[in-house]
Amino acid sequence: MSTVHNFSAGPGALPPAVRHRLMEEFARGSHELPAIVEVSHRGARFLDIAARLQAALRRHLQLPDTHELLLMSGGAQSQFALLPMNLAADARAAYLETGHWSRLAIRQAGSSARIDIAGSSAADGFRSLPGVAPLAPGTAYLHYCGNETANGVQFAAPPVADVPLVADLSSEILSRPYPYEQLGAFYACAQKNLGIAGLTVVVVRRDLLERSPGTLPPFLSYRAWTAQAPMPNTPCSIAWFATLAMLEWLDGEGGVPMVAARNAAKAALLYAALDRSSLYVNDVEPAARSQMNVTFQLRDPAREAAFLAAASAEGFVGLEGHRAIGGLRASLYNAVPLAAVEALVAFLAEFERRS
Amino acid sequence: MSTVHNFSAGPGALPPAVRHRLMEEFARGSHELPAIVEVSHRGARFLDIAARLQAALRRHLQLPDTHELLLMSGGAQSQFALLPMNLAADARAAYLETGHWSRLAIRQAGSSARIDIAGSSAADGFRSLPGVAPLAPGTAYLHYCGNETANGVQFAAPPVADVPLVADLSSEILSRPYPYEQLGAFYACAQKNLGIAGLTVVVVRRDLLERSPGTLPPFLSYRAWTAQAPMPNTPCSIAWFATLAMLEWLDGEGGVPMVAARNAAKAALLYAALDRSSLYVNDVEPAARSQMNVTFQLRDPAREAAFLAAASAEGFVGLEGHRAIGGLRASLYNAVPLAAVEALVAFLAEFERRS
Repeated sequence: MSTVHNFSAGPGALPPAVRHRLMEEFARGSHELPAIVEVSHRGARFLDIAARLQAALRRHLQLPDTHELLLMSGGAQSQFALLPMNLAADARAAYLETGHWSRLAIRQAGSSARIDIAGSSAADGFRSLPGVAPLAPGTAYLHYCGNETANGVQFAAPPVADVPLVADLSSEILSRPYPYEQLGAFYACAQKNLGIAGLTVVVVRRDLLERSPGTLPPFLSYRAWTAQAPMPNTPCSIAWFATLAMLEWLDGEGGVPMVAARNAAKAALLYAALDRSSLYVNDVEPAARSQMNVTFQLRDPAREAAFLAAASAEGFVGLEGHRAIGGLRASLYNAVPLAAVEALVAFLAEFERRS
Repeated sequence: MSTVHNFSAGPGALPPAVRHRLMEEFARGSHELPAIVEVSHRGARFLDIAARLQAALRRHLQLPDTHELLLMSGGAQSQFALLPMNLAADARAAYLETGHWSRLAIRQAGSSARIDIAGSSAADGFRSLPGVAPLAPGTAYLHYCGNETANGVQFAAPPVADVPLVADLSSEILSRPYPYEQLGAFYACAQKNLGIAGLTVVVVRRDLLERSPGTLPPFLSYRAWTAQAPMPNTPCSIAWFATLAMLEWLDGEGGVPMVAARNAAKAALLYAALDRSSLYVNDVEPAARSQMNVTFQLRDPAREAAFLAAASAEGFVGLEGHRAIGGLRASLYNAVPLAAVEALVAFLAEFERRS
């Protein structure tokens, strides 16, 4: 079999070095040592991992002391539910509707707060990004999805509003320098740029924690979680281990600025290939194009199955579009090497030539 | 270093065969194949794992069709919060208070329902198990913790009540034949008898799902989860993989009846050793003694540090008591071999001889 190029949208590719460290961890058994998944999360070894993980996340995110870091689980969807319960209980919150994931966030939020749609690109099929309408008095926060994994649109910079910004950064966290400190809160599942599924990173500006109603069960309260740092109960220890390994790999790569430069090169290469083609098309407004998830279609959608079969035969994995959207997609998370994108671009040209 | 004997209370020991399968999974990279943590949870490989996991759980639990199986995350504590929200919203629920974990369940439940303590063994330091007082009209369910991991007490059989029983079975699930079908609901984190942290098994009798208020955010609603089986969002795929491997290992061991016989032998061996000693003591009422977590103390508590140091030097891991309780504890989950308990019993005698 030829080399595999993994463009999965999430769970996504790991750097080989991170996968190797996970393998070694489970190989400890042959040295008669328990793996990290077999020992207490209150023991010295895991507490050391937890402390290094918190420090590495804070350092790479450049988080100021004003912001609390919570290491939760459940993925971004759990935060769709918890955010309004904690930060907008019995109040109103504004949401930008920019694609599949922000729509799901809006649906979950409606149970706990009055939701205003402050901007929507639904009318153009989520191919652009909306402006922010004036917000009603008493709006608790403005929520946006920084990068819409399924639709392939991304905010180049946070939107501007006079209320705290809350962002779903699941598919772009640590992919480029970002003004995290300007956000009131943000969250990201780990299985795209941060490691494997099982850890959800949540950051909340400390003054906003006071909004968590005292009537919430402690396990659903950001305030109660903060009081029990680094964890109120047994976390998914292997996911914490994987994210620490991922952040140490990021250090070795030169940190976010270096990876960001590579990410920009990867996206530029792929969009250029699509734009010069007469077979493939990406119709997202150029300023709104995602640097992480490049969606595209064949001009003749009937040929997508043949495309995917040919791609699979050449070792390309994960090029299907999101099941709610269809089409094709290549995800260019930090762990995807430039060489994989070069191989994909060559394959795109070859498939077009054969067509 | 001598052989390691892992008696951790959770996360607990894995069978070597399960640890080996986890290692092999991460070694796929050297064969140019993505590991399960690097591919879509909607892809064929993971959906196959999910289907086999559901079937294996249903089979080992002997679940009738009346009961829904939910594969969630967040650990037992998340269920402490979600249970009353789903099954007793704006109503009253009864709880048995039998130790550390049922107390935490009661604390979380108080946010969502009126809680009656239907029985408590607090007065005797949780060394026995209480009866069930008559329940108030309109009681939604009776909750009990089947096995108190920290206190070392265990219900030999479910308590009797004329309302649905709801059980935290985190530390005893699949350790012995059990009338799961008699329960209205039960839940268990995976990192004790079922694999690694990252998966929480929840079972709810289908008719009780109607109680889930339509006002709950879907991610917190048992009813909504059931409608999105096997999963509403990206699960901790490696934990699902580990639990499937664990259940396949259980098959190879002869299933729950065979493992139960071994578990009974392990516990009997250890309690007998404690009872004939003049150095160690377990003061739990015999009928309430846990078969999974054997708590014990030294008659002279000042010597515990020396005991733990000597035990550690001999390769015994995880013998500390719960941090909220102190003392000592050996957890005898399914993956702990009889030989490890024999080694522990020999060490206990040797340490006593030296004392």
